[in-house]
Amino acid sequence: MVERKRWSEAFSDWFNEVIETAGILDKRYPVKGMNVWLPYGLKIMRNIEKFIREEMERTGHQEVLFPALIPETEFRKEAEHIAGFEGEVFWVTHAGLDPLDVRLILRPTSETAMYSMFSLWIRSHADLPFKVYQIVNVYRYETKHTRPLIRVREISHFFEAHTAHRDFEDAERQIREDLEIFDRLMRKLAIAYIISKRPEWDKFPGAFYSLGAEVVMPDGRTLQIGTMHNYKQNFARAYNILYETETGDHEYVHQTTFGMSERLLAAVIAIHGDDRGMVLPPTIAPIQVVIVPIPKKDAEVDVYAYAREIAEELKVAGIRVHVDERDIRPGRKFYDWELKGVPLRIEVGPRDVEGKTVVIARRDTLTKETVKRARVVDRVRELFDEIMENLHARAREWLESHIKRVETLEEAKEAFEDRRGVVEIPWCGEEECGLRMEEVLDAKMLGTPYPEEEALRLEGKRCPVCGGEAKFVARFARTY
Amino acid sequence: MVERKRWSEAFSDWFNEVIETAGILDKRYPVKGMNVWLPYGLKIMRNIEKFIREEMERTGHQEVLFPALIPETEFRKEAEHIAGFEGEVFWVTHAGLDPLDVRLILRPTSETAMYSMFSLWIRSHADLPFKVYQIVNVYRYETKHTRPLIRVREISHFFEAHTAHRDFEDAERQIREDLEIFDRLMRKLAIAYIISKRPEWDKFPGAFYSLGAEVVMPDGRTLQIGTMHNYKQNFARAYNILYETETGDHEYVHQTTFGMSERLLAAVIAIHGDDRGMVLPPTIAPIQVVIVPIPKKDAEVDVYAYAREIAEELKVAGIRVHVDERDIRPGRKFYDWELKGVPLRIEVGPRDVEGKTVVIARRDTLTKETVKRARVVDRVRELFDEIMENLHARAREWLESHIKRVETLEEAKEAFEDRRGVVEIPWCGEEECGLRMEEVLDAKMLGTPYPEEEALRLEGKRCPVCGGEAKFVARFARTY
Repeated sequence: MVERKRWSEAFSDWFNEVIETAGILDKRYPVKGMNVWLPYGLKIMRNIEKFIREEMERTGHQEVLFPALIPETEFRKEAEHIAGFEGEVFWVTHAGLDPLDVRLILRPTSETAMYSMFSLWIRSHADLPFKVYQIVNVYRYETKHTRPLIRVREISHFFEAHTAHRDFEDAERQIREDLEIFDRLMRKLAIAYIISKRPEWDKFPGAFYSLGAEVVMPDGRTLQIGTMHNYKQNFARAYNILYETETGDHEYVHQTTFGMSERLLAAVIAIHGDDRGMVLPPTIAPIQVVIVPIPKKDAEVDVYAYAREIAEELKVAGIRVHVDERDIRPGRKFYDWELKGVPLRIEVGPRDVEGKTVVIARRDTLTKETVKRARVVDRVRELFDEIMENLHARAREWLESHIKRVETLEEAKEAFEDRRGVVEIPWCGEEECGLRMEEVLDAKMLGTPYPEEEALRLEGKRCPVCGGEAKFVARFARTY
Repeated sequence: MVERKRWSEAFSDWFNEVIETAGILDKRYPVKGMNVWLPYGLKIMRNIEKFIREEMERTGHQEVLFPALIPETEFRKEAEHIAGFEGEVFWVTHAGLDPLDVRLILRPTSETAMYSMFSLWIRSHADLPFKVYQIVNVYRYETKHTRPLIRVREISHFFEAHTAHRDFEDAERQIREDLEIFDRLMRKLAIAYIISKRPEWDKFPGAFYSLGAEVVMPDGRTLQIGTMHNYKQNFARAYNILYETETGDHEYVHQTTFGMSERLLAAVIAIHGDDRGMVLPPTIAPIQVVIVPIPKKDAEVDVYAYAREIAEELKVAGIRVHVDERDIRPGRKFYDWELKGVPLRIEVGPRDVEGKTVVIARRDTLTKETVKRARVVDRVRELFDEIMENLHARAREWLESHIKRVETLEEAKEAFEDRRGVVEIPWCGEEECGLRMEEVLDAKMLGTPYPEEEALRLEGKRCPVCGGEAKFVARFARTY
């Protein structure tokens, strides 16, 4: 397989090859930017979705399901939102053999589908906070280079939570809850990330402010894997979402949204993988343990029976296990399961049967150990914890070593030439200076660190463009 | 609420009201034939889907996920299929501000999306049988009167299994497996059904033969809730799906499909419901037991604490339970939960606390019994079984009493005027006579009983149109 070669563009070849050979997606579907989900990839994604649903359940969000088609008339109600999406929506103009009276768009996101219904559902302060979510397919006519899982025209696993609140403060509380949910999910995926408050010129169309969560990919570019937006009353005014207060007045609700997608899987594959393929966190691996029997000619013991016995024991303990009894050489089996990222491989040969042992190989460290038969279940559980810790520690280390704080544009340029990642620069807060830095660095401003307390180490620092007093730390990156 | 009035058109009003007031769907979405799934309805549907997935897993089908958009060029490859669907597909003709080079359809079903990929995936006899499925949203521009769950333009929960086989016999084995899966699902839903082999003029476009599963709704009309098709090599030829045999020849695969949708939920609501609303089988009820504390003024015992204690015990036993602690009168709570079809209601008042008892009310029979506190979990489990049996028995009885075998068109007409349902008539097998009967009876021919052995009680019977020897029993019904 293609060598992974961190730091270089070869990462992209590695990524494409893994996605195909490990059975995640088939990219040969005859529409650009739309892929077929293969069984193994879909199972991983379903496991990720399961964690999302659990978090939604825990925090009192209700699941809903809206139509994928939105009438043009609804779509056109919020001006900034249309401006932001008009260039990238797919239009349904005909049905059967006739043109439609009102054209429909395929949802690029569901604000304009949901909010006229919200105005029917929300009546009084007793209905607030109002919290719903859905996981659906959405469509964006991307004109940039498409990439599987990362930049696609059909997002098959788009998560969107939409909430409504009595006031700004309660909407802010929701954003804090979203950040907590996001952090819990990232622990399940062993992913390290940063949160930035987007600059004014890069907010979600219609938002009061936008937060973005980024990871640093192996080639040093960042990938946005989550967003939280506070809309204030912007959409509520456009869609007339009012509630009656305790005193009988009518007020517009405050709204927030929280979004994620299959980019979570892209991050898992990219960040944990290595030259042999994927390395899956046990939390989301469809197969957590694969058992490979290694028979020897003339050996009298039955390695297959032994393997099945251990598998049964693991299964009873709630572990997702598979015995590979294919009639091919063990080396070929090792190769397959390493590519697919199975966290633990148990090898059993005649000597293991006789000595009542097994050999356990870790996918993340590629190390092996011999374990007593009676200890297998316990040891597997311990190793899952160790793998999660190791993957998370490695991810944190990678992220931290790719965030560089500098004071001049020259230093920033050097950082991008060296290892890329995220570069933090003092900034006066003026749009002009921000855009100038983007231009000079050929990079995007991700925004300022969030929560904002983070930014308060700026005494005496100057904006490198205008020389004015720095009020923010601005983060820059080459982005996906 | 509207009286249910079996036999009459008022059923339709009842159905619409239940769907809205019980929190299944909101029909006010501003696109005709497209509805919003509300949390409670979605939870029931997800429980139904869970059973479908379990069955697919059990029978070795793999889950895949294809794009919802199909290029016109792929869609046009199989002639009968296009002819069948051309009048009812939604067309995506523009993206952003530009017309598309190749127009796209929104899938009405996924044959034409999947089969060019199948031709890449299936190479040799070792790949067969090949069995996949997906649960997705599909689109049909219905020109008839739309009805929620029953006839919609967006089917949100379309199940489709697609299989490929080495020969006709193995495809037939698959159809038998589909029938077995379907029967197991219907037991989970306590639904009684019939299977008919559709007449030639009503096959699925492109199929060699089609089977349909029907239920009889409360107004005597039938609803198709499942289909199985044997395509023979028809699509394989159009999409070039070949496999290499053991002897090195190349043969076209034989294919089948199996389809279901949210019509399953429509059947559950319609068949088990009554004048108070839904009656859900415990298997799919989001809340299986609701506990209503009934406090009395001046009573010294804490009915709420007692209710929570029992709830905790049921929860630990794996039962989906909810304590209704709202500050409204118990009668209002009874009304709400009866409408939502919760299988069991547990009432606890001060005397129950003192006597260590509870009162359990069954939704299906509306009967009550007093149960000792220590017996609650066991009794709830027993009652679930009794409810399932009762619902299934009632459904079978209803179905059987609505299938009438007659010999003349006059008798058939009378049957339709009386209680409708399914009318079985001897038939020579000629299309002309079949279509004539449809016309005279103002009904559709569902087809002939399947498996075909069923039909062999025809000695000496005559086709009432041409007077020729009857070779089949033909089933007619007014259909949804």
